[in-house]
Amino acid sequence: MVDNQSRLSLAVVVASGGLDSCVTAALAARDHRLAMLHVDYGQRTVERERRAFHDIADALHAECRLVIPMDHLHRIGGSCLTDTTIAVPVHGIQPGLVPVTYVPFRNANLFAAAVSWAEVIGAAKVFVGINQVDSSGYPDCSESFLSAFNQTIRFGTRPETRIEVIAPLLKCTKADIVLRGIQCGAPFDKSWSCYQNNEVACGRCDSCRLRLAGFAAVGIRDPIPYLERPETHSLSQQAGT
Amino acid sequence: MVDNQSRLSLAVVVASGGLDSCVTAALAARDHRLAMLHVDYGQRTVERERRAFHDIADALHAECRLVIPMDHLHRIGGSCLTDTTIAVPVHGIQPGLVPVTYVPFRNANLFAAAVSWAEVIGAAKVFVGINQVDSSGYPDCSESFLSAFNQTIRFGTRPETRIEVIAPLLKCTKADIVLRGIQCGAPFDKSWSCYQNNEVACGRCDSCRLRLAGFAAVGIRDPIPYLERPETHSLSQQAGT
Repeated sequence: MVDNQSRLSLAVVVASGGLDSCVTAALAARDHRLAMLHVDYGQRTVERERRAFHDIADALHAECRLVIPMDHLHRIGGSCLTDTTIAVPVHGIQPGLVPVTYVPFRNANLFAAAVSWAEVIGAAKVFVGINQVDSSGYPDCSESFLSAFNQTIRFGTRPETRIEVIAPLLKCTKADIVLRGIQCGAPFDKSWSCYQNNEVACGRCDSCRLRLAGFAAVGIRDPIPYLERPETHSLSQQAGT
Repeated sequence: MVDNQSRLSLAVVVASGGLDSCVTAALAARDHRLAMLHVDYGQRTVERERRAFHDIADALHAECRLVIPMDHLHRIGGSCLTDTTIAVPVHGIQPGLVPVTYVPFRNANLFAAAVSWAEVIGAAKVFVGINQVDSSGYPDCSESFLSAFNQTIRFGTRPETRIEVIAPLLKCTKADIVLRGIQCGAPFDKSWSCYQNNEVACGRCDSCRLRLAGFAAVGIRDPIPYLERPETHSLSQQAGT
């Protein structure tokens, strides 16, 4: 059952252009008109990500889009994604440790901008693609962070405003995310997740590893090009793709 | 009694260059080395505010400073401070109504940037000049907002990080703020509060009115120049300044 009123309401989607935001946007598009927001914060693959964002917004017929620079995250640094003197790790994720790919408090910066936009354009929902299961262990991708942020919105916006940040993939594994993406027709081929390459994904950084493992687990071949598909090669071969 | 360890620790101060942030920075400087942050978000008096910020940072011997653009607040608009097609109100504040000077969710954007910087440079405190008593009734200047934001920081930064946003003037009247500024030697003459003028304060906008009333209440003449000092003229005359 589709609620017509909900279908007509506007929702902001914060989208990097990666797999999770691609699926999140496709899920939001089932019941909302989309106002898609992309933030350039000086990340290594900024141009590739922006291209992915626009391709996804085109594919999902976004009603409006906003691309904003957030230079301060780049200037503040503290992460290998924003400081090119810090190497991108390629040896997998160490449980319990926050990796150097963590951009300090990044999501609070991104979500705050999204809420400002939502308050002005009258959107009651802000969809984000954060995920705390098969993720890199970022504190600003946790359920407790999200819950506290929503409390902050409640008190920090106009009393008549009701804006909520919704993370439909928060508790999904990467395999679940791929499955949900298939169900809602997410344009996987338009998305980009690699932390370090712009044309052919490296297949080795944390982000590529997590993504490839998700596709492999459901026996689907990830449609984007990779330099190598180290751990998932045999799986995807077995799936006959 | 001054705690030497606390004296040596670094604190981020978010400073617009206005009266409240001037006093907040002076209070923080008593026990901390200062890392001062200023955000240009396309507000009407952006250059004058930035000059005030640097003058205050100079006067308080800030150890480091960061001036960052936040163009998206200007592009998002929704406030007379960021959208010049919306007039600045000059007829006083209407209790219970959020005025058009409110920049949607602005402080969440500013504080998020400050926390990102604090996490990278190792500052455990972020001082901000928000005030909910003699203020314009902005939701993002309330105690409930601040408390929720601190909870967001707790969950959204590295587990070993302990960063807290502190608002020493939150419950002060403007008169209290002026008194506290006098006590800690705040460089009032370097500050700038007017929402619409750059060289001589208008004396009529909400921000000028609140500031002038604060000085008038304690019988001190505000050292910055005004085009007019409408409601406080007789009071400051009585005080013989």
